[in-house]
Amino acid sequence: MRISALSEATGVPVATLKFYLREGLVPPGRLTAATQARYDAGHVERVRLVRALTQAAGLSLADVRRVLAVLDDPPADRFELLGAAQAAMLGAEASPSVAVPDGDPWPDRVADGLADLGWECDPGLATRLAGQLRAAEAAGVAGLKAGWLAWARASRGVAEADVASVPADEAGAVRQVVVGTLLTDPVLATLRRLAQQVVAAEVLAGEREVTPGAGAR
Amino acid sequence: MRISALSEATGVPVATLKFYLREGLVPPGRLTAATQARYDAGHVERVRLVRALTQAAGLSLADVRRVLAVLDDPPADRFELLGAAQAAMLGAEASPSVAVPDGDPWPDRVADGLADLGWECDPGLATRLAGQLRAAEAAGVAGLKAGWLAWARASRGVAEADVASVPADEAGAVRQVVVGTLLTDPVLATLRRLAQQVVAAEVLAGEREVTPGAGAR
Repeated sequence: MRISALSEATGVPVATLKFYLREGLVPPGRLTAATQARYDAGHVERVRLVRALTQAAGLSLADVRRVLAVLDDPPADRFELLGAAQAAMLGAEASPSVAVPDGDPWPDRVADGLADLGWECDPGLATRLAGQLRAAEAAGVAGLKAGWLAWARASRGVAEADVASVPADEAGAVRQVVVGTLLTDPVLATLRRLAQQVVAAEVLAGEREVTPGAGAR
Repeated sequence: MRISALSEATGVPVATLKFYLREGLVPPGRLTAATQARYDAGHVERVRLVRALTQAAGLSLADVRRVLAVLDDPPADRFELLGAAQAAMLGAEASPSVAVPDGDPWPDRVADGLADLGWECDPGLATRLAGQLRAAEAAGVAGLKAGWLAWARASRGVAEADVASVPADEAGAVRQVVVGTLLTDPVLATLRRLAQQVVAAEVLAGEREVTPGAGAR
């Protein structure tokens, strides 16, 4: 197909496609004349991925290049492919960069908790987690010591659905890990608020039943 | 205590305290002379709350006023108190304002799914959820139809820990609902990524065991 058809197939303006081509984010088409190139289904898929990474996931061009590099030279092992895609995403995320001073208890609490859960994972993510928990506690949030472990157990259920949704093909898998995670964080935040309403209603109804004199009006 | 001691107790500069007093975010102290006022433990608690809402949770002054109004005239019913605090927080959140066109399947899917779960909740939140799911699907995220229901079930576990952490006192409860939720959304996002690593490793190790010829290298 010509560039106009590629534009139609992807919904991306021709000017933007030319930019992607110039920047090397999309490989060149097959030249059929000095100024005419043909594009195929592989180009459609690549343009969609670049669009999703830049527009939907909000990645910078440098970060998009990092993700594409994983895809263009994929590790033979699928776990490494998923890990490389996640690493590119984590690097792209604005890290909260909360400094954790020496002697702060959160790094040890997080390390011990992850060991108890049997979770082997990225030390950089564990450090990020400790900084976020420390910042929340400093702002007066209660119950974090027990709460974060309960959240971790619940997060397994989220991640099981995440991993189950990863397609078999490499480009689809990389897109799902990066775009799927970034774009559905807000979905999970909304579901948390919905579930808070449901659980609060149940808990308070239960309290009224148990102690009708104290709780009911 | 004097304003200087209030500043010391809360870590908030005197100039900021004067701003809070002028704006009516903190009630005036008891006048002991024409230019001298005394503050008590209630002021310390209120200043900490205002600080957490503005700094940590990033609420605008108008949104802080909305939260404080709930606290200053709290509903007699605890469920209503928590609901009013959450409503103030939801109103303060930058809504994604994703327009869902007529005929889009997501509003019905969300309504049916919530009914299947037995979740009675805020129709505004259900609309927000439908818009977020629609946007993610439009960007090429796979598996959302089954995935969001699995996430919803996992979110119950998150919300159970949330509700269990809410203190008995009214100011503490309002702070926990608003600041606790907003400040720990990033914690949950990090836990999701950690859990993804753990689950992906387990799933792929399992696949290798089941089909050693196909998966192992």
